[in-house]
Amino acid sequence: MMKVLVANDDGIHANGIRTLVEYLSRQFEVYVAAPDRERSATGHALTLHKPIRVDELDMGIPVKKAYSVTGTPSDCVKIALNAILDIKPDIVVSGINHGPNLGVDVLYSGTVSAALEGAIHGLPSVAISLTNGYERMADFSHGAEFLCCYLPKVLEIGMPAKTILNINIPAIPLSEMTGIKLTQLGTRMYTDTYERRVDPRGLVYYWLAGEIAETGEPEGTDVHAIRNNMISVTPVHIDMTNYQVLKDQVDSLEIMGCVRELL
Amino acid sequence: MMKVLVANDDGIHANGIRTLVEYLSRQFEVYVAAPDRERSATGHALTLHKPIRVDELDMGIPVKKAYSVTGTPSDCVKIALNAILDIKPDIVVSGINHGPNLGVDVLYSGTVSAALEGAIHGLPSVAISLTNGYERMADFSHGAEFLCCYLPKVLEIGMPAKTILNINIPAIPLSEMTGIKLTQLGTRMYTDTYERRVDPRGLVYYWLAGEIAETGEPEGTDVHAIRNNMISVTPVHIDMTNYQVLKDQVDSLEIMGCVRELL
Repeated sequence: MMKVLVANDDGIHANGIRTLVEYLSRQFEVYVAAPDRERSATGHALTLHKPIRVDELDMGIPVKKAYSVTGTPSDCVKIALNAILDIKPDIVVSGINHGPNLGVDVLYSGTVSAALEGAIHGLPSVAISLTNGYERMADFSHGAEFLCCYLPKVLEIGMPAKTILNINIPAIPLSEMTGIKLTQLGTRMYTDTYERRVDPRGLVYYWLAGEIAETGEPEGTDVHAIRNNMISVTPVHIDMTNYQVLKDQVDSLEIMGCVRELL
Repeated sequence: MMKVLVANDDGIHANGIRTLVEYLSRQFEVYVAAPDRERSATGHALTLHKPIRVDELDMGIPVKKAYSVTGTPSDCVKIALNAILDIKPDIVVSGINHGPNLGVDVLYSGTVSAALEGAIHGLPSVAISLTNGYERMADFSHGAEFLCCYLPKVLEIGMPAKTILNINIPAIPLSEMTGIKLTQLGTRMYTDTYERRVDPRGLVYYWLAGEIAETGEPEGTDVHAIRNNMISVTPVHIDMTNYQVLKDQVDSLEIMGCVRELL
């Protein structure tokens, strides 16, 4: 039976991970290691300077094991694989995230980072997000059902090395979905405004109030697929090298003068 | 005069950023926005759920402005560009980091993330790290001197879009450096062991004690360059799409059956 390690960034008590685990555990052997509380937008942060606690808990769902971890999403996957689990999972799944992870979101996303951590450990890994999932009680069931069908097929095909699949499920009823689209990351820029406020003591503070800039997204991007009612699947690389620059600009960027001048 | 925004992840009081700013301010107009305390390994985390405080301070160095920010490295660059500075910098520089940022380190690195944030805002951006910089009082002067020479030349050539330069300076005297090498990210894996300990109340906790696995790194990687006494410059992309998979595996990964089966 396929062994699945599940993590997330909304915390082990979130509706998204609970629905996912409920569906996966009907078919697969499921292990959960997720943050004890909400840890979204933590990027690929690691806990280096303080201890991590791990508590086994009963999710009320027939999983093999479930652990609440006082760390980031990346910590959860790292500690599960290296210190907690006595089995090696066949795949790591992170989600279902409350809200989309499209375009530059992947750089900030704890959900995506947990999957990247799986890939760093050489395991097939998938991140899954529901674009309307901001509502706490959003319905995650079609995302979970989709994944139950998709995971075994993906493992059969074989996952590309050092690469995760970043899946976004559109916020529409299943009957309105038009298919699955393999996409590239879009730009999905934010306006990045900060609200400047004054606290009750008269001191200034700022609060990030970024809104999504509705740019025209070309066909082939994740944002475009979602806007067209398709499930978006993006292969995301852990190797961030820009190989094009490496091919084109070696001579210009290896400015030897700068070392010689200093000698 | 070139305007430089400087950030880091070791905090505004770290030796690495102080040395860098001291050198840069002799030649350029320098603005600093850095975390009020050490924030390394924070990845690309953002502060969404609480306010951010920004305090102007006197670094004792003739910079234009210096701000201490109660946020992550990415927060610092984002808030400086969107709410604090009344100028637009020509370039964003993050560092000098205390310790290397090689291979998969870039996924975890706050230093690299601050530079990525600059690139997200469309600015040329550079991260710089000193491989022996773990020692608090390490000598950062040759890294700073190198950058003073390198930055204007890089701006003259023109930086590739959506790409930062991730620079690592080897831990050797300047006279032993053999040049500058444009590199790809190496693998630089960690062993990722966790130490399991018992606290004074008898409760178990874990502490990440990962050590670098000394794998053979092929020529052309950042790790190889550093081991051969060269300054390593890696073009790092903010677009993490794996385009090879997109070209090769569209049909196999767009498994339409999974949507049809659910309908």
